Amino acid sequence: MTKYVIGIDYGSDSCRALVVDASNGKELAAAVRNYPRWMKGKYCDPAKNQYRQHPLDYIEVLEASVKEALAKCPAGVAENVVGISFDTTGSTPALTDENGTPLALLPGFEENPNAMFILWKDHTAVKEADEINNLSKEWDIDYVKYEGGIYSSEWVWAKVLHVLREDEAVKAKATSWVEYCDWLPALITGTTGLKDLKRGRCAAGHKAMWDPEWNGLPDEKFLTTLGPELAGLRDNLFEETYTSDVAAGTLSPEWAEKLGLSTDVVVGVSAFDCHMGAVGAEITPNTLVRAIGTSTCDILVAPYDEMKDKLIPGICGQVDGSVIPGMVGLEAGQSGFGDIYAWFKNVLSWPLQFLDDEAQRKAIEDKILPALSEEAAKVPVEESTIVATDWLNGRRTPDADQTVTGTIAGLNLGSSAPRIFRALVEATAFGSRAITDRFAEHGIEIKEVVGIGGVAKKSPFVMQTMADVLNMPIKVSVSEQAMALGAAMFAAVAAGVYSSVEEAQSAMGQGFEKTYYPIAENAAQYNEIYKRYIELGKI
Amino acid sequence: MTKYVIGIDYGSDSCRALVVDASNGKELAAAVRNYPRWMKGKYCDPAKNQYRQHPLDYIEVLEASVKEALAKCPAGVAENVVGISFDTTGSTPALTDENGTPLALLPGFEENPNAMFILWKDHTAVKEADEINNLSKEWDIDYVKYEGGIYSSEWVWAKVLHVLREDEAVKAKATSWVEYCDWLPALITGTTGLKDLKRGRCAAGHKAMWDPEWNGLPDEKFLTTLGPELAGLRDNLFEETYTSDVAAGTLSPEWAEKLGLSTDVVVGVSAFDCHMGAVGAEITPNTLVRAIGTSTCDILVAPYDEMKDKLIPGICGQVDGSVIPGMVGLEAGQSGFGDIYAWFKNVLSWPLQFLDDEAQRKAIEDKILPALSEEAAKVPVEESTIVATDWLNGRRTPDADQTVTGTIAGLNLGSSAPRIFRALVEATAFGSRAITDRFAEHGIEIKEVVGIGGVAKKSPFVMQTMADVLNMPIKVSVSEQAMALGAAMFAAVAAGVYSSVEEAQSAMGQGFEKTYYPIAENAAQYNEIYKRYIELGKI
Repeated sequence: MTKYVIGIDYGSDSCRALVVDASNGKELAAAVRNYPRWMKGKYCDPAKNQYRQHPLDYIEVLEASVKEALAKCPAGVAENVVGISFDTTGSTPALTDENGTPLALLPGFEENPNAMFILWKDHTAVKEADEINNLSKEWDIDYVKYEGGIYSSEWVWAKVLHVLREDEAVKAKATSWVEYCDWLPALITGTTGLKDLKRGRCAAGHKAMWDPEWNGLPDEKFLTTLGPELAGLRDNLFEETYTSDVAAGTLSPEWAEKLGLSTDVVVGVSAFDCHMGAVGAEITPNTLVRAIGTSTCDILVAPYDEMKDKLIPGICGQVDGSVIPGMVGLEAGQSGFGDIYAWFKNVLSWPLQFLDDEAQRKAIEDKILPALSEEAAKVPVEESTIVATDWLNGRRTPDADQTVTGTIAGLNLGSSAPRIFRALVEATAFGSRAITDRFAEHGIEIKEVVGIGGVAKKSPFVMQTMADVLNMPIKVSVSEQAMALGAAMFAAVAAGVYSSVEEAQSAMGQGFEKTYYPIAENAAQYNEIYKRYIELGKI
Repeated sequence: MTKYVIGIDYGSDSCRALVVDASNGKELAAAVRNYPRWMKGKYCDPAKNQYRQHPLDYIEVLEASVKEALAKCPAGVAENVVGISFDTTGSTPALTDENGTPLALLPGFEENPNAMFILWKDHTAVKEADEINNLSKEWDIDYVKYEGGIYSSEWVWAKVLHVLREDEAVKAKATSWVEYCDWLPALITGTTGLKDLKRGRCAAGHKAMWDPEWNGLPDEKFLTTLGPELAGLRDNLFEETYTSDVAAGTLSPEWAEKLGLSTDVVVGVSAFDCHMGAVGAEITPNTLVRAIGTSTCDILVAPYDEMKDKLIPGICGQVDGSVIPGMVGLEAGQSGFGDIYAWFKNVLSWPLQFLDDEAQRKAIEDKILPALSEEAAKVPVEESTIVATDWLNGRRTPDADQTVTGTIAGLNLGSSAPRIFRALVEATAFGSRAITDRFAEHGIEIKEVVGIGGVAKKSPFVMQTMADVLNMPIKVSVSEQAMALGAAMFAAVAAGVYSSVEEAQSAMGQGFEKTYYPIAENAAQYNEIYKRYIELGKI
């Protein structure tokens, strides 16, 4: 009897449920739902880099997407679903009460952005991240050493500290915090109480300074020195963490009924989207898997004998088992990628406000990026005289710094929109090279890149530019949904269909549809222009 | 009997003829004509910074604009016109044959951009300007010392050398060169032959390294060392120059008939637009008159006892009599000003290409700059976190350098079109401050600014920002056409209506319509942001 698993991918804007055949990874059906409040721009303030998401958004889309996906499947599929796993954005934490419930679900907090999930790209906690970095340097234990040596304002402790300082009401009610990759499994398994909430290795190790070397999270003294606001939280958090091959539990009766599934369905411990996406994209050592969308998340795995005791500075952490149990998972990434193109599209769309016909406006907006790509591709590399940095959303890797900003230099009166767009595409590719260079400088070899995500699938101009700049081949996964597929692989392992992640990859992987090879002549020219990118970054 | 004069202003895009009452400067009528070939983008290549104008454009608009303006006047005016003077952009030279005829008017050269007038903003001669600067440093006479110490690629000798090198056919035919402010009077007075062509002091002194100290133009040895291509030109140029209170001649029968005027009409020696505009705007010592349009041209006059033997480095020259006879005229300016706003408008207009309805497209384009100004004005100064340089068209003053480019820094994903526009407006104001600072550092005091030109009249947001950044009051001239009015004042002096320029200013000046006073709080904040502009300029 065929078994099925469901991988559920929570992205920045939407949730996607993917039903796959556990024997071969083939997709039976998928369904996507946008977060309704988020799509209205609620609780966000882009000028302040404040981005919050309401837990009700997550709940509402979960039921809708899973039910829609199952409804598209042939009869008999729902009955034979054996596992569900989630992948989500991160670090995207929320403060919770003593039951692990995000505060925004409690009366009085429904409209309070500080009681909601703080999206990965929220950069309101720049000051707090600085404080964590400064205190770490003084402390006898270097709590950030496995997190690239720099704590980012995108990560949980900085965000939690910032919100507790900002908001008395939230501070008074907050008992603990939770990443939503850990909260969603708790929600649908009916787990209540903080002690039973299983925390994933991935989020804890990469973002929360969790490591067995110091028995878990940083000690209470460190946290309260950082800010007295943090006092007592640690006792309501966790010591153990779990890799995603482990089951978090089974579906609660309530959620089994909501989703039309059995209470026997195993729910896996979940992880961040790019980590599961890397598994879905069949990651192996020496291959950098890049999830390329609004930002990038870049994942490597290194066997213990290659990793030894290396510490790679300025990345987003190196954590045993965060990707594949039995190997060290390394994370890097660019804070802005497709978001930068979207920003430029938004800037160019500004005059379209004067069009009364909304359908006409939307039609033109949709043409902007494809047409810019087409025109930009015609510009010879030697005419790429505009140079930009890719830090419009700060910098994640190498050397996290949310205070840096984007710069566009080399402008003249002939600098057209497509030429500026080309410079922005090159900037994102140069930012990619800064990452591969960092790994190479520290003896972790990257031989090829695998691209997943919207930009990888849909933007040949961007991908060819990146291949030229990196001077490496880039393979693009067949799967439209590598993240959800990765979650499905983990669900299959957690449910006992396979005994290891590697076995699931081998059976369920969908292969590659296309390879972009670097053009030698362009690579040589970009090698020179890259030096100007590095110089520009010094201002 | 009332006497009338005609001032004719040749701008970057169009020619404007202004008929005024010589007794009080009141405007009777005006007419404007765009250059027809130029408006089609012919002979230009913005990506290369190549901007050429055909002499036929100048001829065609002259007849049309003067006749239209006269047609609008009451009966009896044309018969009582006593003088005509021109002001033009510059340095805008063309190579000529042995009759002083621009080569593009000769058979075989009609479509050759190298045979045309090379517009002030053409920057194809960057290399040649460098060579002039390098050779000047080695030479026993410092030929660039009265030109701010740096020769610009916008100026005649660099352009002439560039074109002679580029184009064998032009080189074979070229006998001399002419600025079009000198060619237009020659044209309508019927002057043929290079020896009779009266050259204006303004163009010669500010742009051609002409000075009595070394008996006129640089010597043949210097020029041929610069480039053998220049050999022989000097003998076909000039030793004497004339201030604009002098008559170049009277209307030729041919042009008297074309324009419907008498052959007794005196045609004045002409000068650059901003120099005549400064006179039209009633320039006096310690007042910086700024013609603010696509670029700025900034004019000061200093009495001999204030000027003494001061050399102001990095400006566009200091020339005895170039503005008002009997005082030293000093020129500075920004290579890009309104052009930078127009560039941004063009970038933002890119998606409008997808609108089929041209009228609708045009209507939206016309809304862009007013709407950007309105939105940008709402941003508090403390939120001006985007900083830009104003060098998208290179830098004219201080320290001419056409290799510098525009930079926009401090961008994040919330950087909207109006915020970027605000940064560009501030950048142009910071560029203005760099100029006033330079004069102040060398002991030439500026107490106030007078603004003329399109931006001064039409952009309150830009003018208030400039007043705040300069921390100086800025008065705006009543006259819509200060340049043409200045030309009319000179025509009146050349025709003998007045015995001096000051007398003409006093009788014909139209006063000021508005003063922008600096807002102290903004001025203090801009004083800090200006330091970031200076730092950004160092990359």
